[in-house]
Amino acid sequence: MVSSAATGHSSSYQEAMAQHPIFKDIEVETLALLSADMRKRSYQRRHLLFLQHDPANWCYIIVSGWIKLFRETLDGDEAVVDVLNDGHLFGDSGILDHGSHDYGAEVIEDAELLCIPTVSLRRVMERDNKLVLNMLHALASQRSHHLKEIEHRTLQNAPQRVGCFLLSLCAVDQASQVLHLPYDKILISARLGMKPETFSRAVNALRKEVGIDVKGSTVTIPSIERLSDYACSACSNMFPCDEHC
Amino acid sequence: MVSSAATGHSSSYQEAMAQHPIFKDIEVETLALLSADMRKRSYQRRHLLFLQHDPANWCYIIVSGWIKLFRETLDGDEAVVDVLNDGHLFGDSGILDHGSHDYGAEVIEDAELLCIPTVSLRRVMERDNKLVLNMLHALASQRSHHLKEIEHRTLQNAPQRVGCFLLSLCAVDQASQVLHLPYDKILISARLGMKPETFSRAVNALRKEVGIDVKGSTVTIPSIERLSDYACSACSNMFPCDEHC
Repeated sequence: MVSSAATGHSSSYQEAMAQHPIFKDIEVETLALLSADMRKRSYQRRHLLFLQHDPANWCYIIVSGWIKLFRETLDGDEAVVDVLNDGHLFGDSGILDHGSHDYGAEVIEDAELLCIPTVSLRRVMERDNKLVLNMLHALASQRSHHLKEIEHRTLQNAPQRVGCFLLSLCAVDQASQVLHLPYDKILISARLGMKPETFSRAVNALRKEVGIDVKGSTVTIPSIERLSDYACSACSNMFPCDEHC
Repeated sequence: MVSSAATGHSSSYQEAMAQHPIFKDIEVETLALLSADMRKRSYQRRHLLFLQHDPANWCYIIVSGWIKLFRETLDGDEAVVDVLNDGHLFGDSGILDHGSHDYGAEVIEDAELLCIPTVSLRRVMERDNKLVLNMLHALASQRSHHLKEIEHRTLQNAPQRVGCFLLSLCAVDQASQVLHLPYDKILISARLGMKPETFSRAVNALRKEVGIDVKGSTVTIPSIERLSDYACSACSNMFPCDEHC
């Protein structure tokens, strides 16, 4: 059933969706069916979208904002498994069966999301092979990212992990750069699997080793080459890195 | 082109393939096309199948044996990202485009593998939607596993990680168990992202905390409940765990 609000906006949904890699080259009919069922919603910072193990009834594409994906142990500790922004897909655990979410998701900067019922996706995936191939691409890209995370948490020290994070924010064609941290340092620490005090020590080590300067959320990197030499020596990839960060 | 050896065995290939979840319910014609192109090969321990960044021309299904997946840094350190046995698919990075492998692969116990040219898989995936859906299932299952790895390397201490590994070898309906480690302790350490000496200390801690006994490769677990209480308290899942270990 299509609500009047959704009908009113379906053409703009269709436009936003058509630009996303997940919907590239899929049948027009598929796009129309999905955009009839989907919603575009705004969420404020700190809004909890779902918890790990919740039924995965919706999947989401980020139009704007930042989303934290996390897992919580029985002891109450939290592991941040990813922090995502524009263009990323998440919450898609239910696309194949009536599954539950692999992680929880919380809005960390005001966000606008395209929300697609997984039941609608499942239905069109049965008939549109191109859509399934695009989903397979998305999961393969996530796998590259997760394998890199596992590698880094095994072999990189904390300053190298922070250095890698900073490099992921750098333009590839610059020799030096001034950049702004995209979200707060406590969350960056969690995203990198370290405590805030470890993050602070790592930043100090990077000051000494490669001359970076940090004031508030502004980071000055005098030599991207020096930083990448330092961080990428403990990685199986070199900068610029083609794997999603 | 089909070699005479492959033709001679194609019906047995077809049988082995048809039983694998990747090929469940796919079209008979797809199965016939793939089994004509594939090979069943035996490899000895220590055989290097491919390196990370090599062109991904073949993908593999393990019939028997153990395979180590690893990544190597520029400094020469190795991160073991997985150790797989019967039924697992690997080396599938090339199924979507002319990609390169995300990791290297080495045979660690004599193995028999079904080897499928990725070009053949790509060709049939264009026309058999069910096959692509099955591949999507496989990647979603790998994602669950990788997310758990990232969570564990962030929040579990070494004895809990070893405890979790032992639980993955336990039958779910037993109160206690005697089991044999499936491969050597140095590789188990690497698979768990720790040094061999950390692994030894973790085993000693488990002796004290939950009363396990280790003699060579034989491990006696007097109470699976006690071990799972200990290890799973720092995990977002409880034993028995439904995520692939």
